[in-house]
Amino acid sequence: MGKEIPSRSEDYSLWYNELVKRADLAEHSDVRGCMVIKPYGYSIWEKMQQALDAMFKETGHVNAYFPLFVPKSMFEAEEQNAEGFAKECAIVTHYRLKNDPQNNRLEEELVVRPTSEAIIWNTYKKWIQSYRDLPILVNQWANVVRWEMRTRLFLRTAEFLWQEGHTAHATRDEAVEETLQMLNVYATFAEQYMAMPVIKGRKTEGEKFPGALDTYCIEAMMQDGKALQAGTSHFLGQNFAKAFDVQFAGKDGKLDYVWGTSWGVSTRLMGALIMAHSDDDGLILPPKLAPIHVVVVPIFRNEDELGRIAEKVKEITASLKPLGLSVKFDNRDTHKPGFKFAEWELKGVPVRIAIGPRDLDNGTVEVARRDTREKQVIKLEEVSTRIPALLNEIQDSIFQRALTFRNQHITEVNSYDEFKDVLETKGGFISAHWDGTPETEASIKEETKATIRCIPLNAKSENGICIYSGKKSAGRVLFARAY
Amino acid sequence: MGKEIPSRSEDYSLWYNELVKRADLAEHSDVRGCMVIKPYGYSIWEKMQQALDAMFKETGHVNAYFPLFVPKSMFEAEEQNAEGFAKECAIVTHYRLKNDPQNNRLEEELVVRPTSEAIIWNTYKKWIQSYRDLPILVNQWANVVRWEMRTRLFLRTAEFLWQEGHTAHATRDEAVEETLQMLNVYATFAEQYMAMPVIKGRKTEGEKFPGALDTYCIEAMMQDGKALQAGTSHFLGQNFAKAFDVQFAGKDGKLDYVWGTSWGVSTRLMGALIMAHSDDDGLILPPKLAPIHVVVVPIFRNEDELGRIAEKVKEITASLKPLGLSVKFDNRDTHKPGFKFAEWELKGVPVRIAIGPRDLDNGTVEVARRDTREKQVIKLEEVSTRIPALLNEIQDSIFQRALTFRNQHITEVNSYDEFKDVLETKGGFISAHWDGTPETEASIKEETKATIRCIPLNAKSENGICIYSGKKSAGRVLFARAY
Repeated sequence: MGKEIPSRSEDYSLWYNELVKRADLAEHSDVRGCMVIKPYGYSIWEKMQQALDAMFKETGHVNAYFPLFVPKSMFEAEEQNAEGFAKECAIVTHYRLKNDPQNNRLEEELVVRPTSEAIIWNTYKKWIQSYRDLPILVNQWANVVRWEMRTRLFLRTAEFLWQEGHTAHATRDEAVEETLQMLNVYATFAEQYMAMPVIKGRKTEGEKFPGALDTYCIEAMMQDGKALQAGTSHFLGQNFAKAFDVQFAGKDGKLDYVWGTSWGVSTRLMGALIMAHSDDDGLILPPKLAPIHVVVVPIFRNEDELGRIAEKVKEITASLKPLGLSVKFDNRDTHKPGFKFAEWELKGVPVRIAIGPRDLDNGTVEVARRDTREKQVIKLEEVSTRIPALLNEIQDSIFQRALTFRNQHITEVNSYDEFKDVLETKGGFISAHWDGTPETEASIKEETKATIRCIPLNAKSENGICIYSGKKSAGRVLFARAY
Repeated sequence: MGKEIPSRSEDYSLWYNELVKRADLAEHSDVRGCMVIKPYGYSIWEKMQQALDAMFKETGHVNAYFPLFVPKSMFEAEEQNAEGFAKECAIVTHYRLKNDPQNNRLEEELVVRPTSEAIIWNTYKKWIQSYRDLPILVNQWANVVRWEMRTRLFLRTAEFLWQEGHTAHATRDEAVEETLQMLNVYATFAEQYMAMPVIKGRKTEGEKFPGALDTYCIEAMMQDGKALQAGTSHFLGQNFAKAFDVQFAGKDGKLDYVWGTSWGVSTRLMGALIMAHSDDDGLILPPKLAPIHVVVVPIFRNEDELGRIAEKVKEITASLKPLGLSVKFDNRDTHKPGFKFAEWELKGVPVRIAIGPRDLDNGTVEVARRDTREKQVIKLEEVSTRIPALLNEIQDSIFQRALTFRNQHITEVNSYDEFKDVLETKGGFISAHWDGTPETEASIKEETKATIRCIPLNAKSENGICIYSGKKSAGRVLFARAY
């Protein structure tokens, strides 16, 4: 275990880095910018994948797999796309063959995919001839590479894991509907599984995906008040269809370009999950994504007591496993209970059960919840009803806590002075009028490091005055400093 | 649908290529050597992944993720490993950054992983200090790249998907036990899920993984009599621990090098699955890996009839879904039943149900199985019992058919003339005495293109005379031409 992790108030950034390492979630590899996702971290990611994959399939999507490499010319076919990504990538220039141990230069350089629109639309050209071939509703789980000089575990790494949906439609309306449907899927996942409230919105021109007409996003608030973009859904219009000449014959026989969307979430969600809920003692995991739901720690003085406790633990496990709960019995004799308590708190296991000799006599166990530290003694025969109820309560409770915090940290301001003051003293999201110009957006970013996170979808229309330029504004947008 | 696929007897190789494309399993991409795995093909791969992943977890393994890139020096640290793989790889030499659109040369070239022993043992060095840190039982699902000039969909592609297990142990015995355990997991998966009989064996020095002390494999026979290596499990000894200086303190405090294993199967299994069972009309999928178990084709003359049939199909689906079966109702009005029959036969759906107006009157359906084409008429109310039973029967039956074929095509020979004759006329596996030298093995390969597939684990010891050199032999080995 080593020494304690620094507290959030002391050094939020260091707290995060240390927590990721100490809780065995991930570590830096000896390959610059690339992380190793350790088994405990990966098991949380697997839970995320399962839940998301089921939601994608429920909404009619299927998985497929496209090449890791994208020839440079293909990558540059969609100008805006290349503009946005070709500037941060890894490039394969050489290969070697079995019987020729020299480096051979490739005729054309290959870009390691930073995102797959290009290779996928190049493929869709072959798949789509008629309206009968549409819609195509495909998702891919994959690794992608974006060269970064300054990296942080999960939040910004040269290689990361993600899913990328790429759909093709016959009409604009259908593509817009798909874009918003997937935004809603992401919001549902964030709130119901990650217990993390999000604001759904649209990105400004300056912040959107370069190849898209519109980028929608979900924005979450971390405990330091900074924003984290947790997922994006892009309405691509006909941009990629035009770049790769993907046309279809409609019912009337007329040719038209296909409408597209793309949408993705990544291992960045791991960073969001950690920063949304955890405290100075370690992770706090929502039960729906916790690899271990219940840890049982025996309190014993000798082998005989441990043996008697183990018997009871068998019963507990047998009553919880059929409910789909994962139970870990920490019967190590090399560590004291206090050490074990701290270790499982660090790892964020939602519920801890302790059993000692007195519990055996009384037919009870001590139950502690990770989020509030509350303890209660319950009867053994109640375990199979009380524990699942407690896990549901924890899931709700950490969502409510995050929601309250988030709502307390959204501030409406009406002047630039007020804006700067709130940003420095309170942080969080700032709701303010903006004149809609990229110039104002850029100046505010330059001067304060705050960006427009989104134009909220549920914003009421309200005429006002831009806090920076004094020009007319048609509604408030959300500013924040962001990860 | 287009024209028919060529028959196996006409051109086995073309039959395979066309089948893979026509059944919508995969296609070549415009990136040299890389394939696109299409949704139908990927859904079979997902079924394989799920079954294997569950088996890995049941045997105590956990998943993790390691970097795509391996610095060249790290890759070359284990000499034998580099010897085997550094000669067929893709090399990243440059990167670009957001605000610097030039190609920048990397200080050290990065190899796109052809396998991950190097990066993983470099990481294990940090994870392992004491016997308490062992064993480490980690698996990774990932993409890997091996540069190949001649590629075939699924069987040999520059990029492919696989899983690679990498375990670390305190003792030699435990590592050997793990190696054999995973070989058995692979054999069980091949036989029980893929319905594909395999022979478990050990590779010769010439055929083993260069970084291993021993390579074990499962070998399957395709319908053209050629062998396909379907999975390998390597006992690494202390090779990688020595190359990366991974030592642990034992209970007695003494330092020793860690013992290792690695094991993997890949999307190559898709090729094996196709070639093991399919016929001239298309795929034959074992029910346990079929994305669609039952397709229902309505026979109707008008909307009214289709409506009445649809009502019955609802009942059928409702009775089969709870049993975990996937049912597809092909209610397209743009295609005739005969066309649909052929299409679903091409795609290998194990069971087809046809319902016409007469069936509605009689309360029956017509059931056809894909493997034998046998048809029977059953009562509607029997669907929920007869269909699952039929699927089990199909699973067994295609395994038995493949087993019979395989066993009929293993021939014992006692002279080199006989060997060459059987190889040319009958093909299949040839069981023959070999003197154990790499020279003899190489000469036979050179002269006949047959390789030693394995030294079967269950071979009886039998003294004999090498068919090639006339020298003493301690037992028979299996030769074959292979994919």
